[in-house]
Amino acid sequence: MAVYTDVPDDDLRAFVAEYDLGEVVSCKGIAEGVENSNFLLRTEAGSFILTLYEKRVDPKDLPFFIGLMEHLAAKGFACPTPIRARDGIALRRLCGRPAALVTFLDGMWPRRIRAFHCAGVGKALAALHRAGRDFAMRRPNALSLAGWQALFAACRERAHEVRAGLAEELEAELAAITAAWPAGLPSGVIHADLFPDNVFFRGEEVTGVIDFYFACTDFFAYDLAICLNAWCFETDGSFNVTKARLLLSSYRAVRPIAAEELAALPLLARGGALRFLLTRLYDWLNHPPGAFVRPKDPLEYLQKLRFHRSVTGPGAYGLA
Amino acid sequence: MAVYTDVPDDDLRAFVAEYDLGEVVSCKGIAEGVENSNFLLRTEAGSFILTLYEKRVDPKDLPFFIGLMEHLAAKGFACPTPIRARDGIALRRLCGRPAALVTFLDGMWPRRIRAFHCAGVGKALAALHRAGRDFAMRRPNALSLAGWQALFAACRERAHEVRAGLAEELEAELAAITAAWPAGLPSGVIHADLFPDNVFFRGEEVTGVIDFYFACTDFFAYDLAICLNAWCFETDGSFNVTKARLLLSSYRAVRPIAAEELAALPLLARGGALRFLLTRLYDWLNHPPGAFVRPKDPLEYLQKLRFHRSVTGPGAYGLA
Repeated sequence: MAVYTDVPDDDLRAFVAEYDLGEVVSCKGIAEGVENSNFLLRTEAGSFILTLYEKRVDPKDLPFFIGLMEHLAAKGFACPTPIRARDGIALRRLCGRPAALVTFLDGMWPRRIRAFHCAGVGKALAALHRAGRDFAMRRPNALSLAGWQALFAACRERAHEVRAGLAEELEAELAAITAAWPAGLPSGVIHADLFPDNVFFRGEEVTGVIDFYFACTDFFAYDLAICLNAWCFETDGSFNVTKARLLLSSYRAVRPIAAEELAALPLLARGGALRFLLTRLYDWLNHPPGAFVRPKDPLEYLQKLRFHRSVTGPGAYGLA
Repeated sequence: MAVYTDVPDDDLRAFVAEYDLGEVVSCKGIAEGVENSNFLLRTEAGSFILTLYEKRVDPKDLPFFIGLMEHLAAKGFACPTPIRARDGIALRRLCGRPAALVTFLDGMWPRRIRAFHCAGVGKALAALHRAGRDFAMRRPNALSLAGWQALFAACRERAHEVRAGLAEELEAELAAITAAWPAGLPSGVIHADLFPDNVFFRGEEVTGVIDFYFACTDFFAYDLAICLNAWCFETDGSFNVTKARLLLSSYRAVRPIAAEELAALPLLARGGALRFLLTRLYDWLNHPPGAFVRPKDPLEYLQKLRFHRSVTGPGAYGLA
């Protein structure tokens, strides 16, 4: 949950007056998202999400994120659409922070993942990859191999506080993954954080995808690997191959998965597990007492990482 | 900010299906309120607030609070109106907690209090007192004299951690206020917590009053005293007599203030200041590390208490 900045009503009225959206009707801070301050804003023109970008987001990246949402929405992909003020500019300032207004998306994110959700997310991910293909901007993935090395270096000495032997296991894993990491797989804009709380549904239909603040340029199949980790494990840690098959087959009904991408999936999924293990470990070790956000358990991702290490081929994910 | 309970989408759909409100369109936890979990729920029928009552609210009091909102709304007072499900019942259960749906109110609560806000709140408070007159249920004020004694007893030994000599000052104050507390003033339903975050405005007009979870049966003038404390002091601690005069004169344009009520105001305002000083002191001393809610400064209310102790008569509040 997150509202880091309280927006005075006077400042909000002045901010909204720059748009063609009529007057402010109401504004409520939303207890979702851990990076930014989000508000559900109602004006005479409708409902919007107001985001104030807090310090965890690099302001240099904001034109990429805002531009990407505009691009995807223009292609018909269901995501928040940035609203431009009368001067044509979408990325503005409020309360001393970068701020943007985007359209409100209907739907709810699923708390209990059923098989149909996995089918929906596979299809949505492929549509995202297709819609992003001709997006001109690029953003390197800051949380790929080099980023993992830096995170590991920052956590190495204290990793044993979370689990005995964790530093050694992570070091070996990092070396193995780095040595085998593929090159030249089909690439483009990926979401890179497509967890259940970022995908809205009404019934069995995806109504939209949110939170593009980790989006970057990387292998499409790596995005699939992140989704396998986020959507296809049960709460007891077991891997649900039926969900994985649905996710992958729904994806490839929209965008074909090349043989080389399929072959790389086990390693990419190991890498994806390592990425979330490392960021969660870092947050766990550096979590300020009294913070709003309860850190997520890093060991959930150790279990997933070990599963993918044991996999002998992409057949384990339900596709031959 | 507060969302203590996460509501699974399946459970929410089943809950909403008991009402004539169509299907759930979206649901977002709101980062406001410190006692309960609140969600902005949109269904095919419109926007609502869903409240799950957490452990700080005594379930025995809920029929009073729900009944009061229904009563006031029926009298035309702008407040959240409880929605009854098809079986006629408004107070239900969700996720193991008592839960209710109420109408959504437009407007925003003011962060910077201007004089016109004080005029608006005075008028709204008088309208509330009038609308509540024939409400049949009663609820004693748990945070009056006996409650203050209990809070003081719980804080006495550690009060010096907040300020040297605080326990002694509070003890003397409690004795003086108890000895002089009036009897027989005009009574009825009071809000008892009408702070700026509980009053919504659009422009200069009050669009509604929320948060009736401290409402009880007590002196109307005590409610006025609470408002003087909550609305008429500047952030530097100075008392703004212009705001007080506007609040009181707007109030009495709707409901006359008897001479005995006016005469009692300085003591009631001292009592009101002591009440918030004690609850904030208790929260300050018993605040769990890592809690979502940052406790409010008790000493703000010590300053207010001392102001009212120095007052020689109701003329200090701008009315003769």
